Parts: sequence; C-alpha cells; structure tokens
Amino acid sequence: MGRLRRGERMVVMAQTLTAQPYKVWPLGAFMEKLGAAKSTISEDLTFMKAVFERFHLGRVETLAGAAGGVRFLPHYTREQIRDLVEDLCRRLRDPGRILPGGFLYTTDLISTPQLAAQIGETFATFFADRRPDIVLSMEVKGIPLALMTARAFDVPLVTIRREGRVTEGPSVSVNYVSGSSRMVQAMTLPLRAIPEGARVLFIDDFIRGGGTARGVYDLMREFRAEVVGIGVFVESPTPREKLVDNYISLIVYEGMDEVQGRVLVSPSRWIA
Amino acid sequence: MGRLRRGERMVVMAQTLTAQPYKVWPLGAFMEKLGAAKSTISEDLTFMKAVFERFHLGRVETLAGAAGGVRFLPHYTREQIRDLVEDLCRRLRDPGRILPGGFLYTTDLISTPQLAAQIGETFATFFADRRPDIVLSMEVKGIPLALMTARAFDVPLVTIRREGRVTEGPSVSVNYVSGSSRMVQAMTLPLRAIPEGARVLFIDDFIRGGGTARGVYDLMREFRAEVVGIGVFVESPTPREKLVDNYISLIVYEGMDEVQGRVLVSPSRWIA
Repeated sequence: MGRLRRGERMVVMAQTLTAQPYKVWPLGAFMEKLGAAKSTISEDLTFMKAVFERFHLGRVETLAGAAGGVRFLPHYTREQIRDLVEDLCRRLRDPGRILPGGFLYTTDLISTPQLAAQIGETFATFFADRRPDIVLSMEVKGIPLALMTARAFDVPLVTIRREGRVTEGPSVSVNYVSGSSRMVQAMTLPLRAIPEGARVLFIDDFIRGGGTARGVYDLMREFRAEVVGIGVFVESPTPREKLVDNYISLIVYEGMDEVQGRVLVSPSRWIA
Repeated sequence: MGRLRRGERMVVMAQTLTAQPYKVWPLGAFMEKLGAAKSTISEDLTFMKAVFERFHLGRVETLAGAAGGVRFLPHYTREQIRDLVEDLCRRLRDPGRILPGGFLYTTDLISTPQLAAQIGETFATFFADRRPDIVLSMEVKGIPLALMTARAFDVPLVTIRREGRVTEGPSVSVNYVSGSSRMVQAMTLPLRAIPEGARVLFIDDFIRGGGTARGVYDLMREFRAEVVGIGVFVESPTPREKLVDNYISLIVYEGMDEVQGRVLVSPSRWIA
C-alpha cells in the first residue's frame, strides 16, 4: 500500500467513528489500517476533531492510557435539538393523525429509523454525563427510541415485558399501577438481563401519571440497579403531579379538538 | 468562511453520509455547507467513493437527474459477513446461554445495538436489489434487527402486534397457525400502517416451521402489499419442509446437549 493522503485517511476515520458511536478505537487500529505512524494519526485526529466541532457533527474524544483511543459521541447543539423537536411537532399537528376515540397516531414517526436515531441522539445529549451502562425500554412502542439511545451510548438495550417468557429463563416481576388507567399490571425481566450495580437509563414514548416509571424504579431496586435518568418522547401535562419527578420530555401533548382537527403539541420546557 | 481543504471537506461528507444511510443528499447541500463549487464537490465524491471501495466501508452512489445527489449504502463483503456470523456463532456457543427447559438465551445479542446494526446491514446487503419500502417485524424480539435493517434502507419499520390497540385506529387481523406450537394466533396491523402496493421486507429473529412468515403473506395480501423478502437471524433445520421457501437465514441452530453444555450452531448455507 502506497502512502495515503490525508483526505483518504480522513474518509476512513470519519466513516469508521461515525458508523459505531461511542466505541473506543485504539490508535493502533488506524495505524495498521492506514499504514501510518502514530504521530500522523494523532495529528489527523486533532484535525478531524476541529472539523467535527466547527460543523456541529458531534464530538470526537481522545482517551489517554492503556485502554485509550478515540471515539465519536453523538452530540447536538441546543439549536439542532430545537429544530428537530419543532419539526416533530409540525408533523404531529397533521389532522390526519386524529384517530376515532380521540387518540393521536404517533407510531409511524417513532418507527422511522432516521427520526428514531435523532431522538435517541437527543436523549444521549441530555444524559451524556449520566454514563448509563444499560438502556431500558418497555414493550412495544418505546423500543425504537430506546434502541437508538442505546446505540448512541454503545450499551445494551433491555426490554421489560408484560409477561415473562419461559424461553428467557428465570425472571423477576413487579406489579405496578398504571397512572392513567388505575389498573394493576405486571412488568417482568429475565434475572440475567441486568447485573447488580448497573446504571440504567429508562426511555419511553409517553408519560402521563408516571406509574410505569415508578414501576421501573421498583423493578430496578430488585436488581440492585440504579435508575440514572428517564427520558420520554411525549408527556401529558395532566396530572401535574407525576409519580416520578426526575424525567425529561421532548414534547408536551395537551389534547386535540376533534371537530376542528387541531392537535395541541409544543416543545417541552427542556427544549425552549 | 475561508476556503476549506479537501481533508476538511472529506470529514464533513463522510460523516454526513455515514450518519444517515440511504438518504440522498443533493450536491447543493454540500456546496452550501462547504462553500465549494459543484466541480469541487464532484471531484471530492469521486475521491471519496474510491476510498470507500478500497477499504470496504460500503458504497457511495451518485444519482443523476433532478432528484439526484449522493448517498451511502451499507454493504458488506462476503468475508465481512462470514466474520460477523462466525463471531455470533462463537458467542451463541457459550454454555452460559443454556436455560432451564433446553432454551437458548439470545435476547442480549440481538439487543446489542452495534450487533443489531451489523446484522441489519447484512440483511440490507442480501436484499439490496429488492428495494423494500417498508421493513416489517413481529413483536417483540425481532424489533431491534428489523429496525436496524429499516435504518440501512431508510424506510419505515412497521411492527405487527398480536392484539390490536384502540390507540392505533382501525386495524386488519389475520389468524395463523404457529408452525411449531400448532396454536392458532392472531396478527394485527393498523389499517394505515401499509399503503397499497408497498414492497415489504419481513425480518424476524427465528424461523422453525414458517407459520409466522406464512401469516405475514396472508396479512400483506389483505393490504395488497408485496412481500419482497424474508430474512431471519436463526433457523431451525427441522421441520425441513417449511411453510415458506424464499427466506434467507444467517445461522442454523441444531439444538443443544444440556449435560455436556454444548450448543450446536453454525453459519447457514447463505453464508458459506
């Protein structure tokens, strides 16, 4: 292999880092792949870091020491987050989303991979300093957002089921009262899904009373794991007093006017 | 903004394309962002394309015409696919995965975002010529793999539920006989989830008899949509005659020896 030019090395490094967020690459991996000296790769990284910053592409972080290397962290500016959330609100206001019974159809939005990825990276920006080692979701609707958040942190996704599965081995269940329906429900996780002491970030599509989030706390206590954050896509402003208080939401849904075809959504107080 | 060097332009373009697979970027987007002439951007893309090819990073494709531009397609070589599948097989052979009752624990693997993404991009490589406009999954376990496949094609994920949800509006249900359990079950989708004439790729974590996949055909017929491919992560070699024949799988699971702690898995015939 002839000596590569900087442009070529930049393509390989920017592509490799971006394709696997949060993964640490030892400099040796690039030295070998690109046939370059350590000093060259180090200079390249300084150069690349500046471009990521200047164009708001996220962060490139170099870690010193034996386990050191370089990684890409998805990170949005406040303005990028506001633009994304305002775009999501605009889409949610489409009267075609109003369903019989006064429900709002949102499944398509949060199942569109690029949107789910951007929402996940927004949560990763908000919770960057919490260093979760697991992202937790509740079946079924919250899974895409939670998976994309887990991807941004390069940690496993764990999904709470309503019923245990014999195919997943011994499990732990807790009962919880859904804040909105006042019904007692169960949440179940395989015993092996969460190690003791894990730092858990819970991501869900919707919060009303906070009963589910409260249940997550109870369930994590059984695993001796710590809930380090709760991120929800949409929140209902009522009831004002929720069963948890340390969550963040992106969008507030105040209801709809079925006759006039109006959907009342706006960016939450964390976005403004 | 002073004139940028090629290395800087390469970082922005490689990062932007990689972060959103399959999305078409008009050249004008880069001209504006980088303050560069069209001829410069065109030369840059030729340069970048060659680097992606040389280092097997996937494909960069330029599309001519009014709706033209450039996009990144995840694409693995046969060797990259073989390495991934062999690594997955090695992990699946861990005796710690053997659960009471002779079940194999796989949830953690397919819920690890980077692995799910690589499996999704493998399916995207196999089904590249099918040009799906929807990726379909069956709740719950198959969702991460299906979402990452949908991400690689930049198309929506649609998830079949076992029961309809009042919160998702009018729905279509079909009954199907699970090939393995011989039980009649239902699969349900909101009426609005799939437009007529859609090209649908079904992704699931496991196939035994093929009853679920058969049900997907029946359900898609109701939507007048076309199943253009079926990709499963693991298949059981028995029964040999499945209810569908046009699927591909990555791994064959032949069973386990609980006493000796041996798990029999190997790459499927599509990998070798």
